[in-house]
Amino acid sequence: MNNKSHGVKQLAVIGTGVIGNGWIARFLAQGYKVLAFDPVDGAEERTRKAVSHAWPSLEKLGLAEGASQDRIRFASTIEEAVANADLIQENVPEREELKKNVLASIDQFAKSEAIIGSSTSGIMPSVLQEGLQHPERFIVAHPFNPVYILPLVELVGGESTKADVIERASDFYQSIQMKPLVINKEIEGHLADRLMEALWREALHLVNDGVATTEEVDAAIIYGAGLRWAQMGPFLTFHLAGGEKGMRHMLDQFGPALKLPWTKLDAPELTDELKEKVIEGCESHAGDVSIAELEQKRNEFLVELLDLVEKYWPESNNLVTK
Amino acid sequence: MNNKSHGVKQLAVIGTGVIGNGWIARFLAQGYKVLAFDPVDGAEERTRKAVSHAWPSLEKLGLAEGASQDRIRFASTIEEAVANADLIQENVPEREELKKNVLASIDQFAKSEAIIGSSTSGIMPSVLQEGLQHPERFIVAHPFNPVYILPLVELVGGESTKADVIERASDFYQSIQMKPLVINKEIEGHLADRLMEALWREALHLVNDGVATTEEVDAAIIYGAGLRWAQMGPFLTFHLAGGEKGMRHMLDQFGPALKLPWTKLDAPELTDELKEKVIEGCESHAGDVSIAELEQKRNEFLVELLDLVEKYWPESNNLVTK
Repeated sequence: MNNKSHGVKQLAVIGTGVIGNGWIARFLAQGYKVLAFDPVDGAEERTRKAVSHAWPSLEKLGLAEGASQDRIRFASTIEEAVANADLIQENVPEREELKKNVLASIDQFAKSEAIIGSSTSGIMPSVLQEGLQHPERFIVAHPFNPVYILPLVELVGGESTKADVIERASDFYQSIQMKPLVINKEIEGHLADRLMEALWREALHLVNDGVATTEEVDAAIIYGAGLRWAQMGPFLTFHLAGGEKGMRHMLDQFGPALKLPWTKLDAPELTDELKEKVIEGCESHAGDVSIAELEQKRNEFLVELLDLVEKYWPESNNLVTK
Repeated sequence: MNNKSHGVKQLAVIGTGVIGNGWIARFLAQGYKVLAFDPVDGAEERTRKAVSHAWPSLEKLGLAEGASQDRIRFASTIEEAVANADLIQENVPEREELKKNVLASIDQFAKSEAIIGSSTSGIMPSVLQEGLQHPERFIVAHPFNPVYILPLVELVGGESTKADVIERASDFYQSIQMKPLVINKEIEGHLADRLMEALWREALHLVNDGVATTEEVDAAIIYGAGLRWAQMGPFLTFHLAGGEKGMRHMLDQFGPALKLPWTKLDAPELTDELKEKVIEGCESHAGDVSIAELEQKRNEFLVELLDLVEKYWPESNNLVTK
């Protein structure tokens, strides 16, 4: 499982806000030493606090041998931070010019074979790698908060990124207990944030239009779709909602609803080609497992999850109008 | 907890597809007798199979005294099914004319004080109750698949619905272990399906544009946002992503991203008024609990959830590009 072909030993983290600190905590828990850089006053103190805050969860998830909260050190320049690093994780604020400036410095001082990963949630890698001396080692590696717990990391290479770099990065992030999802087509917002933004914008519309409060919107997700999405995404969920014929039936039955103004988002035309892509996608995803078996698994999962959620739902009584 | 003020004893279910059968299973598990009607050949057999399929999950969730899979009977007419019912749950296919015809029959034969609940996922109650003799007892009661496990039920009254009916319905659904969410403004798709549709349409665009396969879209939800949404909705999630200043900081930092073409959905203008609604909504939702405490809870929940998910994720190895 711990594939060492990535060759990553020394890590650098540039920018230590919520995301940078999340990376540091995960790296430390996996037994790495980390050299960090952030020019903001008090950054080191905030990082140490964030790591100690994350540590109990990381202990429960399982620490690697030699993992220690103390193996973090702050460098006083970008040069010092990145000079010996095999992988540099950049997490400065989401402004294109700022990111490009910082990446130019990293590029200048990093070893030529080092991987430079950017946590950008929205900017395309081809844009960020433009003008670098070694653009081929640059990749978007976009994680999700809390970075030290959630496994997803989106990997997107730009036009100049070498396939080998994507592969090494994927091996590395997998070795630190993440689920790398390689995305082959660059778009703003990558994949997960496109989906989240669509839901988020609709949520803002609903609050703006006075349909619901923020708390009601949250409840409408938590007690229904949210429980399902923790185990299955939107496609497999609907594959199971279609009865024995799965997604094929589902698209026949609910396809016409795409014409209805159910959101402020325009739907794509449900062409035969799109239909087949979706149906075949679900069928191949489910593989040899029948819908009945998937349902069985889903049910067992949901029953256990309900218990867990009962235990942890914040203010769950407040969420529901009696 | 089991508030009997709703006065519901006898239940009728009209339309026994996936949703109707889900209701039947939940009602039976809660110790009720159910009289069902569905004109389609083989409906009764399919219902009995669906109930027996759901039963192991219901046993784990806890059966009420006297609960039995056998307390379901099929009537041969709508009249027979609804004549003595205190609450009638309608689940015929999502076509306005069909629903209106069936509701007219239910309305004709039901007791005047009976509650008529429609499982419609999208049609507004004022549209469906038009022309009924007793429109005041009609309400939308929209559940989520699997109905026998997921707790959410959206309750929406129409222009003619009496407040007392909404209250009795809310009491009843709460008494059968659901989380009724009363929605005060009618819109097509109610609340939860607006949110789900937005995400669903974006997902279809991503597949249509060749950005990702259905499986990759699912993975992008499951391993990231999906895990969070099982416990917190989009607003509280972002409240926690904003660091110590919560949603106020979050909107300052990511508000500008609403201008970016990150989805095919247009965003609302982030006016001061909308900002305050969102910030105050989150702050009042969180109440006296600090962001640090909420994070603590979230982390403990996520760590346990990851274990659970590891156990049940279907084909989880296939989901990730190595």
